Amino acid sequence: MKEFDLLARIRRRVALSGAADDVILGIGDDAALLQVPSGHELVVSTDTLNLGVHFPDDSSPADIGWKSLAVNLSDLAAMGAKPRWVMLSLSLPSADEDWIESFLDGFLELAEQHAVSLVGGDTTRGPLSISVTAMGVVETGKALRRDAARVGDDIWVSGSLGDAAAALRQWQSKGLQSAKLRYRLDRPTPRVEFAGAIAAYAHAAIDLSDGLLADLGHVLVASGVGADIDACRLPTSRTLNDHFPDDAQRWSLQLGGGDDYELCFTASPADAWAIEQALAAQEVPATVIGRISAEQGLRISDTEGASFVPTLSGFEHFASSADPTPSKETH
Amino acid sequence: MKEFDLLARIRRRVALSGAADDVILGIGDDAALLQVPSGHELVVSTDTLNLGVHFPDDSSPADIGWKSLAVNLSDLAAMGAKPRWVMLSLSLPSADEDWIESFLDGFLELAEQHAVSLVGGDTTRGPLSISVTAMGVVETGKALRRDAARVGDDIWVSGSLGDAAAALRQWQSKGLQSAKLRYRLDRPTPRVEFAGAIAAYAHAAIDLSDGLLADLGHVLVASGVGADIDACRLPTSRTLNDHFPDDAQRWSLQLGGGDDYELCFTASPADAWAIEQALAAQEVPATVIGRISAEQGLRISDTEGASFVPTLSGFEHFASSADPTPSKETH
Repeated sequence: MKEFDLLARIRRRVALSGAADDVILGIGDDAALLQVPSGHELVVSTDTLNLGVHFPDDSSPADIGWKSLAVNLSDLAAMGAKPRWVMLSLSLPSADEDWIESFLDGFLELAEQHAVSLVGGDTTRGPLSISVTAMGVVETGKALRRDAARVGDDIWVSGSLGDAAAALRQWQSKGLQSAKLRYRLDRPTPRVEFAGAIAAYAHAAIDLSDGLLADLGHVLVASGVGADIDACRLPTSRTLNDHFPDDAQRWSLQLGGGDDYELCFTASPADAWAIEQALAAQEVPATVIGRISAEQGLRISDTEGASFVPTLSGFEHFASSADPTPSKETH
Repeated sequence: MKEFDLLARIRRRVALSGAADDVILGIGDDAALLQVPSGHELVVSTDTLNLGVHFPDDSSPADIGWKSLAVNLSDLAAMGAKPRWVMLSLSLPSADEDWIESFLDGFLELAEQHAVSLVGGDTTRGPLSISVTAMGVVETGKALRRDAARVGDDIWVSGSLGDAAAALRQWQSKGLQSAKLRYRLDRPTPRVEFAGAIAAYAHAAIDLSDGLLADLGHVLVASGVGADIDACRLPTSRTLNDHFPDDAQRWSLQLGGGDDYELCFTASPADAWAIEQALAAQEVPATVIGRISAEQGLRISDTEGASFVPTLSGFEHFASSADPTPSKETH
């Protein structure tokens, strides 16, 4: 495998878009040299995507490229950070130049949307695996953390929930597949601008990679609080409603299924109006789905007013299972 | 695979060593929050190691842990940077806790030697692969780059060359294996303090990961210069001399073999004395092996005064081959 040829190819494509002011030295030396603006903290996230684990094996290289960057930008958005730079490590079974070009199409399309510079990385021989480290900046002290939810906070989510899990369900069952749902699985939109708009009001924030129950669960544990969620208020796309009309089945996708990469944040109810104003220019909707409580645990109520309490072991099950089913308890 | 359990385990071990002042938020949120000191640039390097490609399949987990960090710290050293933080992405076929603990033994042993904080990462299911992103800082404008070699510069290398390639050769031939050579392959020492000592005098620098010919070749191309190397001056360990007494065979390991992770740098001959003084406290030796010339290309002279000119295609061969043999041309 001619590792240098692949790097050179990546380098040529990146050079075409011109270097950003905060890139002193990009691809081509032992390391990249970057300039973090004064009064800012550096925000860094890493995620690895493996074939068959993080994307279906019929995913196109361009979609894999897009998604491998999207999941990392989503992490930065969840911190309220502005993404600036990214490192890319590609393991490939062989030096497949067509695959690389197509992968870069998707990767760089998203990078350009957010003016993110690809500043380094490596290509190695091995089973297909993509490891991305994204770096961004946030004003000192302004990062959105998981441990900052307060009792009485509204719980907000961006966009709609469950589409990606529904697409995965359809793909696994080898039946009818909605292209619209599949697009949401393959091309998640990191909520970078959305996060920028609500950052001044949000207390805690997290991105929904493993599903609402698992990810909101992390916020609750870190903040030492509980939450009540109204399943009927979960934002739902028309397509998801059409394909999964049964409430219980749809809710299990929306609560337990991952890969939506929507933003979940908490904020004071007193700021609800200001948040709506701040989001005026955003196409993506925002919905209050519940409230932070002093009582530990996460309670979901459904249309009949019955509630079920997901357990912590339930979170792990949801996070790793392709077929999530909440452990339903009434109390 | 219980991804969260593994992360929690890593987090516990890292927490034991206490957070550094420049880590605002480490493992446990969507991203790490770090403080780059004012007047400094951020220096970032990524390297992925795959089983069977970057380390022999009988390597111990602790050695793999050590090496996966060492190769990245070596890149930062080659920029004259001080390593500060590291992200770790682990792909593992299964959640083998003993393997992880042993891996972390090696990884964290080296991290602690350099006061580097492990601030994030992820563990995923997949074929064994380790991707590390190392971050460091360097005073603004003081980074050592590949493109700064000047005609007339001395070419220096740290330590000794060829031990790692010799160990790989012995391992591949399944014959006698020197534990001392193998240690150099498994536990390379990133030349961080060495780089700090010579940074004020060095013009260009690079670390020797792919072998002297390939890596010095990068410096020559980037700087638009050539070089003359005296093979007899290549620093050689006693063990390497004992195991490979034949000059031509030993030189091929020293010139073409990678994995030494020694530092190669160029500096004005007028600074040779100052460099020796600056290195007084370093145990690792430094050796001048040749000189930068205006004539493009890399020429190696041997004991008989014959010289051979490695070609650029030769560089790639050396970089990817386990059995490097320079293309010998007299002229």
